[in-house]
Amino acid sequence: MEEKNINTVLFDEEEIIASERLADLLSQKKYQEVKQHVEDLPAPDLAELFYELDEKYHSLLFRLLSKELAAETFVEMDSDLQENLIIKFTDRELSEILDELYIDDTVDIIEEMPANVVKRILKNSASDDRAVINKILRYPKDSAGTVMTTEYVRFTGDMTVADALLHIRRVAIDKETIYTCYVTGKDKRLLGIVTAKDLLISDPETALSDIMDDNVIAVHTHDDKEEVAMKLDKYGFLAIPVVDSESRLVGIVTVDDALGVIIEESEEDFAKMAAITSASDTPYLKTNVFDIWKSRIPWLLILMLSSTLSSAILGSFEAALPAVLVLFIPMIMGTGGNSGGQSSVTVTRSISLAELEFSDLFRVIWKELRVGVLCALTVGVATFAKVMLIDGLLLGNAAVTLPVALTVALSLTLTIILAKVIGASLPLLAKKVGLDPAVMASPLITTLVDAISLIVYLLVAQNVLNL
Amino acid sequence: MEEKNINTVLFDEEEIIASERLADLLSQKKYQEVKQHVEDLPAPDLAELFYELDEKYHSLLFRLLSKELAAETFVEMDSDLQENLIIKFTDRELSEILDELYIDDTVDIIEEMPANVVKRILKNSASDDRAVINKILRYPKDSAGTVMTTEYVRFTGDMTVADALLHIRRVAIDKETIYTCYVTGKDKRLLGIVTAKDLLISDPETALSDIMDDNVIAVHTHDDKEEVAMKLDKYGFLAIPVVDSESRLVGIVTVDDALGVIIEESEEDFAKMAAITSASDTPYLKTNVFDIWKSRIPWLLILMLSSTLSSAILGSFEAALPAVLVLFIPMIMGTGGNSGGQSSVTVTRSISLAELEFSDLFRVIWKELRVGVLCALTVGVATFAKVMLIDGLLLGNAAVTLPVALTVALSLTLTIILAKVIGASLPLLAKKVGLDPAVMASPLITTLVDAISLIVYLLVAQNVLNL
Repeated sequence: MEEKNINTVLFDEEEIIASERLADLLSQKKYQEVKQHVEDLPAPDLAELFYELDEKYHSLLFRLLSKELAAETFVEMDSDLQENLIIKFTDRELSEILDELYIDDTVDIIEEMPANVVKRILKNSASDDRAVINKILRYPKDSAGTVMTTEYVRFTGDMTVADALLHIRRVAIDKETIYTCYVTGKDKRLLGIVTAKDLLISDPETALSDIMDDNVIAVHTHDDKEEVAMKLDKYGFLAIPVVDSESRLVGIVTVDDALGVIIEESEEDFAKMAAITSASDTPYLKTNVFDIWKSRIPWLLILMLSSTLSSAILGSFEAALPAVLVLFIPMIMGTGGNSGGQSSVTVTRSISLAELEFSDLFRVIWKELRVGVLCALTVGVATFAKVMLIDGLLLGNAAVTLPVALTVALSLTLTIILAKVIGASLPLLAKKVGLDPAVMASPLITTLVDAISLIVYLLVAQNVLNL
Repeated sequence: MEEKNINTVLFDEEEIIASERLADLLSQKKYQEVKQHVEDLPAPDLAELFYELDEKYHSLLFRLLSKELAAETFVEMDSDLQENLIIKFTDRELSEILDELYIDDTVDIIEEMPANVVKRILKNSASDDRAVINKILRYPKDSAGTVMTTEYVRFTGDMTVADALLHIRRVAIDKETIYTCYVTGKDKRLLGIVTAKDLLISDPETALSDIMDDNVIAVHTHDDKEEVAMKLDKYGFLAIPVVDSESRLVGIVTVDDALGVIIEESEEDFAKMAAITSASDTPYLKTNVFDIWKSRIPWLLILMLSSTLSSAILGSFEAALPAVLVLFIPMIMGTGGNSGGQSSVTVTRSISLAELEFSDLFRVIWKELRVGVLCALTVGVATFAKVMLIDGLLLGNAAVTLPVALTVALSLTLTIILAKVIGASLPLLAKKVGLDPAVMASPLITTLVDAISLIVYLLVAQNVLNL
């Protein structure tokens, strides 16, 4: 890097060196130097330093931070680090940190803590904050209410631009954003939106009601948070208002929260599709081996057990299965699984992106049926050629006859069509009955398709080869 | 919905009705009514209406829009729609639309167009815009340079807060954001950042150099755009400055662009992991069957062909393989594939989130080896019990003896360890040689693991069962 005045982020090795240096300074009680060392670091980088630092120094280093930086850093830590610190905090320290936090950050922290820590947090929150926190905690899981912030700028319609600017000056410090402001009536019903840009380019004497945008796009407290994030993206908003069932403004979701939601939900979907039970918020290299094992072993065991179905199907036909047909079991099961996976991942993501609903089921099946037939015919013909030419001629397996190639190709054709329709339907059905569609895009679907493809294969073999 | 004044987005059925109504009005030449109908719609909703509307009405409806709304709507369309419209535009219409667009949006459009359309776009752009566009087009694919906007607010350090506010008033209309502004020297070297919030709460006579934050976090034009987006998320910025190799400010990436990048890259990763060649920017139900087929068939064919490896391995042992061992082929291959998939998806995502680099290879292998041993022992013991109790006793298969159960369990144990290490290493190796890591998290890894698990199974069987 040739720049000196441009800060770039610490990378792993630098972090380790920085944390070793910090540990040295802390053990030598050179606290003034520690303070100088950390006070210019951005909070997210400082939080990362804690991971590398021996736990015995955590509360010491934390107490050396200015109140504001301490709070900002605290928010950036993962829940394990936070919990360890809270346990070491005095009630007074805890209440000072909580005072500095935005309420939505406090709620995020509370959601990850065990009951006794939650109690302590609530006990040490300001009493009016506590009421708001309790209200937010009652919103359904993953709803807009749980990610919104209640610290927004609110105007009344009779204010002028000058009034509004003065108001912003006074309250800016406590608000998560001042760039999108809301005009409400006396009953807190949302009337319109005014941006800081509108205020900056308008005449100071103008009434807000003249410049506000009253064609408001809002979300409801109970809307799914991923839908809310997608709406922010679609309309390019910096914030979107959240209203209750009586159209009263109760909070806003800002674009940085939306970005967090999108990243978190994508990681959860990835985890489910890879048969991992939980997406960790700790970076991979910093997660301990036992925690990784815990998140991976449940699905491995379930999928291993569910393969009993395939074994049982093979077992019931076993006596009649010629050795040459065994060769193609991996191909038929693999291609079936891949075909189903393509459909289930596509449909699951479309559900996540709020593009598909259960009511689209028949349109989806009709589409996948046509795609399935196209794919099945292409792969079927290719398979017939491949089996005859590669497995038969090239690898010189005399058992690979025309009827065998026909059996394999025909089985594959039927399997692909079935796999596509099942793969596309299951996520929508899962959503309908309140299960998580993403789990249906996981290897679970492969197990089902495996069983079906074996049955198809064995039935086709019986009929074509007259077993 | 009980609210009347709160706009909620049109859903599919409403869209179809709205588009049918529009088609009626257009065919009856009731253009004034059409205008009234659409002028209050947000651009993203209007763009969606075009999908439902017969193509013959597209250019007609588009010409009825105000210039500003037309440009905003154009940006929201997918590239097929855009291309069809551009073909119908006169040069003058095209140049009017281009005048209204931000340069980064023009670049996005250009990147998806065929060469002849690109030529027309460049020919009809203002000449100074054209120079900037050409420069941006030369940045590497997926780099910060390709997503940045060059329309930002720039101050010099000697300006006062009052000067700055006046400047914003004058230029706001042409800038993508006015909320994060940049202070540069005469040579355009980046000196600091001033937010609109700073300006609003500071005394008008203050010099910018006194309130600017000079601890600037910036990215380079050649940085990967996903890393840039993750950095915006990490630091909670609304925009991040992009500098060239001489620390000169050349553009900014705004948070809404970052949100777009994250959504797009996640969808691409999902597509690759599901063995689909391209993530479509068209909603699923609006993508035609032939396009879906095209995106799915290449990997289906490749994976079908690659299964020749498994067949060949099975074929080479075929004569010696007892029927009872065939029963467990699906289980061994399935569990191996799932184990490898867990590791490859985890590592691939960590690479995408810029948490892992090639230099971490040995730390990753060491971690996966330990996780692999833990998983392998757990699943191995469970498998032994399952094969003995369920397949042997419960399903009453007399061929399932103690040595058979031991063979299956031992093979699975070895397969899981190998699958985890291979699954974790391949994405890092792919990145090192310039391939896409996400492809290694795809079914491709399953094919490899399938082959390995079969070899392990057959070797273990030979040794334990003395075949």
